[in-house]
Amino acid sequence: MRILTGLQPSGKLHVGNYFGAMEPAVRLQDEGEAFYFIANYHAMTTVKNPDELRAYTRELAIDFLAAGLDPERSTFFLQSSVPEVNELAWILSNVCPVSQLEKAHSYKDKIAHGFSPQHGLFAYPVLMAADILLYDTNCVPVGKDQKQHLEITRDLAGKINEAYGEGTLVIPEPMIREATGVVPGLDGQKMSKSYNNTLPLFADPAEVKKLIMKKLVTDATPLEDPKPKEGSTLLALYRLMAKDEDVAAMEADYDRGGIGYGDFKKRLLEAYLERFEPMRLRREELLADPGYVDQVLAKGAEKARAAAAPVIDRVRKAVGLA
Amino acid sequence: MRILTGLQPSGKLHVGNYFGAMEPAVRLQDEGEAFYFIANYHAMTTVKNPDELRAYTRELAIDFLAAGLDPERSTFFLQSSVPEVNELAWILSNVCPVSQLEKAHSYKDKIAHGFSPQHGLFAYPVLMAADILLYDTNCVPVGKDQKQHLEITRDLAGKINEAYGEGTLVIPEPMIREATGVVPGLDGQKMSKSYNNTLPLFADPAEVKKLIMKKLVTDATPLEDPKPKEGSTLLALYRLMAKDEDVAAMEADYDRGGIGYGDFKKRLLEAYLERFEPMRLRREELLADPGYVDQVLAKGAEKARAAAAPVIDRVRKAVGLA
Repeated sequence: MRILTGLQPSGKLHVGNYFGAMEPAVRLQDEGEAFYFIANYHAMTTVKNPDELRAYTRELAIDFLAAGLDPERSTFFLQSSVPEVNELAWILSNVCPVSQLEKAHSYKDKIAHGFSPQHGLFAYPVLMAADILLYDTNCVPVGKDQKQHLEITRDLAGKINEAYGEGTLVIPEPMIREATGVVPGLDGQKMSKSYNNTLPLFADPAEVKKLIMKKLVTDATPLEDPKPKEGSTLLALYRLMAKDEDVAAMEADYDRGGIGYGDFKKRLLEAYLERFEPMRLRREELLADPGYVDQVLAKGAEKARAAAAPVIDRVRKAVGLA
Repeated sequence: MRILTGLQPSGKLHVGNYFGAMEPAVRLQDEGEAFYFIANYHAMTTVKNPDELRAYTRELAIDFLAAGLDPERSTFFLQSSVPEVNELAWILSNVCPVSQLEKAHSYKDKIAHGFSPQHGLFAYPVLMAADILLYDTNCVPVGKDQKQHLEITRDLAGKINEAYGEGTLVIPEPMIREATGVVPGLDGQKMSKSYNNTLPLFADPAEVKKLIMKKLVTDATPLEDPKPKEGSTLLALYRLMAKDEDVAAMEADYDRGGIGYGDFKKRLLEAYLERFEPMRLRREELLADPGYVDQVLAKGAEKARAAAAPVIDRVRKAVGLA
């Protein structure tokens, strides 16, 4: 079973990105033949500065490796290493009604958020479909917000098969991700760069300590009283990071009272460091060894191209381009 | 000076296609470094049958060679031999407002003619811009109906240069084609497959004779009277095909009277055969030598890829994909 996931580079990662995308992706490596790519073509729809695009792409590659992606087991590559994806997107464009793209949530959302309505944003779902179909992907992990894109992909693949013969493209199945739930930010809202409330993923311990001790919101419950578990951002973050028995202990201490938030914050900091400090150190090593990262991406590109080649050949023959 | 022209395969050629597109293209070989390609990606917007697409593509290659394209002097290739064009199209999509494509005449016309509004038709001008820009084209011969596409191309190239640095793309100039005027069909309307009034380009002499003698319209002027030159389809076709002195003689005979249309039709047939019979015979030779055609197209593909490679590299670096 071939599983594919794309990640779009957009700058420094935070704990919300980790639990929402990277951690599930790393776990999925055990479940099938994983294809992971960094969607730098797609990133062009929002990242207009070339130095930023290059830096974000590189950083995400390093971050993903640091977070546990195993390039021996998985095929890990940059989207732009397999430009054939653009050719497949053109082919799909010819069975894709304009109205289907007009209805895409992602386009409407981006426009609503003030992005100028450019054709790259409009054609985004077609390129995403090509990403998936180019590798004969069987299975795509999707969150709720990406369901529509996978539906478009399945629809386009079905239309190609109807027009040019069954088996021209493999129709992928969605793998509905167990909801991580919303990862709260330091202020209690959803963690998001646009809310400026993030806990960075690879920050150094002093910075994390400062953020947790000074910026993480708690309520005004007196030290001696039991603390409300419901709605506690601190506890929600701890549940994501700490071991089950430590979570149980903190919950009991919340109920009992007599312990202040300062103390709980120290436990959260410990859990963060235990979980992420090894990744940060691994990341430092990778930053110091650019040759290794180049080599990983070159090998991934080669594996991805080898997987794409028979598919694009098959499609070109089927549609009459070859 | 690099000149680029694309021709879209759409089935059997007629005399209108020849004078409208092929003959000017063949002449242009003397004026610069000519790049000619067969737009089989674009053809997918209307040709949905793969066998037809393959056959039309192949036939147009053969027809173009028979019509005088010199593969030694020109770079002659299939659009699909340089799939990088799709990558450049994606890059251009990110500076192309959706509204610009909504306003494109070609899209509106196709929809008005009953084509279903698919994304391939919508994105057509972006791919065309990529065709032109991928080869650092200086000059594009355009008829009136393609002016808008070249304007879009120039606009997108300008936006890329503004965003990513001057010189990222070469901005092409239009070369306004001297109007051939409308080539009339056998019934006097514009020659067009959709009016079923065409004089085929590579028909055998017996078929052409039948079409000219039986189907070409003339008026009811008696044999002995002068014939009206204005509005004479026969004379208009003769002017395109015959030598200047022969045209002058026919015009004088029109004025003088005493000669019937049957006679003039025979002269038109002679002019047709003198002009097109060598091409038809050359075409027969090419049909009998598929290896030669393969070799021409393979060599053209190689030359085109070599011309495209530094351009796409330059663009990838400029936008931050490399």
